[in-house]
Amino acid sequence: MDGRILVPWEQNRENAPEQLTVEVYDGCGEPPAEVLDDVVFYVVPYGRVQQVRLMRRMPRLRAVQLLTAGYEHALPHLPPGVRLYNGRGLHDASTAEHAVALVLAAQRDLPRWAADQRAHVWDPHYTRSLAGCRVLIVGYGSIGAAIEERLRPFEVTVTRLARRARPASGVHGVEELHRLLPETDIVVVVTPLTPATRGLIGAAELAALPDDALVVNVGRGPVVDTEALLAERGRVRAALDVTDPEPLPADHPLWDAPGVLVTPHVGGGSTAFYPLAKRFVDEQLRRWAAGEPLVNRVSLDES
Amino acid sequence: MDGRILVPWEQNRENAPEQLTVEVYDGCGEPPAEVLDDVVFYVVPYGRVQQVRLMRRMPRLRAVQLLTAGYEHALPHLPPGVRLYNGRGLHDASTAEHAVALVLAAQRDLPRWAADQRAHVWDPHYTRSLAGCRVLIVGYGSIGAAIEERLRPFEVTVTRLARRARPASGVHGVEELHRLLPETDIVVVVTPLTPATRGLIGAAELAALPDDALVVNVGRGPVVDTEALLAERGRVRAALDVTDPEPLPADHPLWDAPGVLVTPHVGGGSTAFYPLAKRFVDEQLRRWAAGEPLVNRVSLDES
Ligand SMILES: NC(=O)c1ccc[n+]([C@@H]2O[C@H](COP(=O)([O-])OP(=O)(O)OC[C@H]3O[C@@H](n4cnc5c(N)ncnc54)[C@H](OP(=O)(O)O)[C@@H]3O)[C@@H](O)[C@H]2O)c1
Ligand SMILES: NC(=O)c1ccc[n+]([C@@H]2O[C@H](COP(=O)([O-])OP(=O)(O)OC[C@H]3O[C@@H](n4cnc5c(N)ncnc54)[C@H](OP(=O)(O)O)[C@@H]3O)[C@@H](O)[C@H]2O)c1
Repeated sequence: MDGRILVPWEQNRENAPEQLTVEVYDGCGEPPAEVLDDVVFYVVPYGRVQQVRLMRRMPRLRAVQLLTAGYEHALPHLPPGVRLYNGRGLHDASTAEHAVALVLAAQRDLPRWAADQRAHVWDPHYTRSLAGCRVLIVGYGSIGAAIEERLRPFEVTVTRLARRARPASGVHGVEELHRLLPETDIVVVVTPLTPATRGLIGAAELAALPDDALVVNVGRGPVVDTEALLAERGRVRAALDVTDPEPLPADHPLWDAPGVLVTPHVGGGSTAFYPLAKRFVDEQLRRWAAGEPLVNRVSLDES
Repeated sequence: MDGRILVPWEQNRENAPEQLTVEVYDGCGEPPAEVLDDVVFYVVPYGRVQQVRLMRRMPRLRAVQLLTAGYEHALPHLPPGVRLYNGRGLHDASTAEHAVALVLAAQRDLPRWAADQRAHVWDPHYTRSLAGCRVLIVGYGSIGAAIEERLRPFEVTVTRLARRARPASGVHGVEELHRLLPETDIVVVVTPLTPATRGLIGAAELAALPDDALVVNVGRGPVVDTEALLAERGRVRAALDVTDPEPLPADHPLWDAPGVLVTPHVGGGSTAFYPLAKRFVDEQLRRWAAGEPLVNRVSLDES
């Protein structure tokens, strides 16, 4: 078939249908100009998101596959007419797992025990629990549903919220956010970053939360307003895998804010991802060769 | 009814059936001698386990209720003929939650992120995940089953092991431990301490585990052999809520052992416990007054 395909892993080249011309590009350095000139389908290497910029130098490009669920970083580089596909689903297990890890760490005081361990101090105290908590998932999509599934056996009450209400599936629309916050112990934020979600959890929303509530963010940093969160420090707790700004500079006040736990955007980055992602790329190549529509197309007129 | 009952919480006194003589004893100081002389039913205050020794000074004592699941600390003080009841079930949610918190913290490198946060360092790396892991629960009782329930949605394979095999429920007997260990990524230990479980996870068992396996102990410290664990440091990881000795002295090598996470016996001690425990004591008093058998009797001829 016409044109070249760039894939991130050797396995994808080996498993590719015969009629495809497939080359491995792992994101280190740049492919030679004659390769770029001929690429029709580009799978952006995972962990090298800056290589989305190569799209501009692929005159024959027809489709781009990201391995991240978020795609806002690709939009400025996307030539007109090129179809965009994302990694929706590939990070569900990993990110949902990390979200629950953050929830449990915050409720069960793990950062405190880690500090005590470093100081060789055995000083038990009673902690909060997850059992009995009312959890609000803001962004009940693919990962949000995976988080709910993992939280359910912990004896919690889960409330689902997305952009639009889906009453048949018990999903509230975002217009109900303010009504729901005062009845929430733990908010888990897992929306993409869009103009509508930027600052979605701001001063008014944080103020609506009860004392000692926990805000977990595994979506995108700017969805939670950092200044507003800092203003509520001591009253509202937070566990953030994504921050605004990101990376967090060494002198940023979030690092030392009481009741705030930070991990450096590692939700999607665990061993749960690789086997899933490799099989997914294999499948997309099979569809490409068969002339079937690829899955995970990003529809660019919404948000 | 004849004789006094000591309960730990005011709520229990308020809710007690009228015909009972109930007094609150929260474990601080000691009840006066004329009270001790008259106690027939003693609910040992939670968090004051050393007050089990008062049993010896209660000549009319007929029944003792512990609020812990473990009861080995009570045995040396139990006068002959006095029935012993434990808190089986009351700590299931709390302890199971903590066990999963330890598993996730270890797999997702939370102690490292906590240290980086203190140093204001943003330095992400790929971590292990829980998804895909083979988990062996050593002690598939009340808490073990609660742990399994919480782990299940994380895409793990769970193997159950108890003292005696229960093939109908897929529970292996302890004689299969050695065969199962080489196929295990994560061992969760949650047995009571008995002569048979002391050192159950020793040098041979740890050696049978694959490299990088994780040993989680939320049962009792001496079930895992500390020296053997230290000898495997760097190869086998551990997350311990209970240790041997306990409390861990400040100069103990476990504190700094690489890949070892320690929390100070806080599994059962969370807010998930209180409402459950108070209702449980209310119910036991109701049974006592009605002449019904109490639940959670410890049968003292097994183990
Ligand atoms: N921490 C990490 O390492 C990591 C890893 C992977 C992904 N992520 C982030 O997680 C995000 C979600 O991923 P996903 O795969 O679950 O995406 P998804 O399936 O598209 O779900 C996104 C959800 O967000 C909701 N949403 C969008 N705009 C909203 C708004 N204005 N108000 C309320 N809800 C809104 C959507 O509502 P509708 O259902 O009504 O459209 C949908 O339920 C990604 O976009 C990415 O930013 C982070
Ligand atoms: N970390 C904490 O804060 C915390 C809190 C609460 C409890 N605990 C500990 O957790 C223990 C378990 O509590 P539980 O309520 O789950 O008790 P449980 O319901 O009695 O279950 C104990 C399990 O251990 C198994 N077992 C006993 N001896 C064994 C042996 N030699 N080899 C293999 N398995 C053996 C039993 O097997 P069978 O089913 O065949 O009898 C049973 O499945 C308690 O005794 C206590 O020590 C710790």
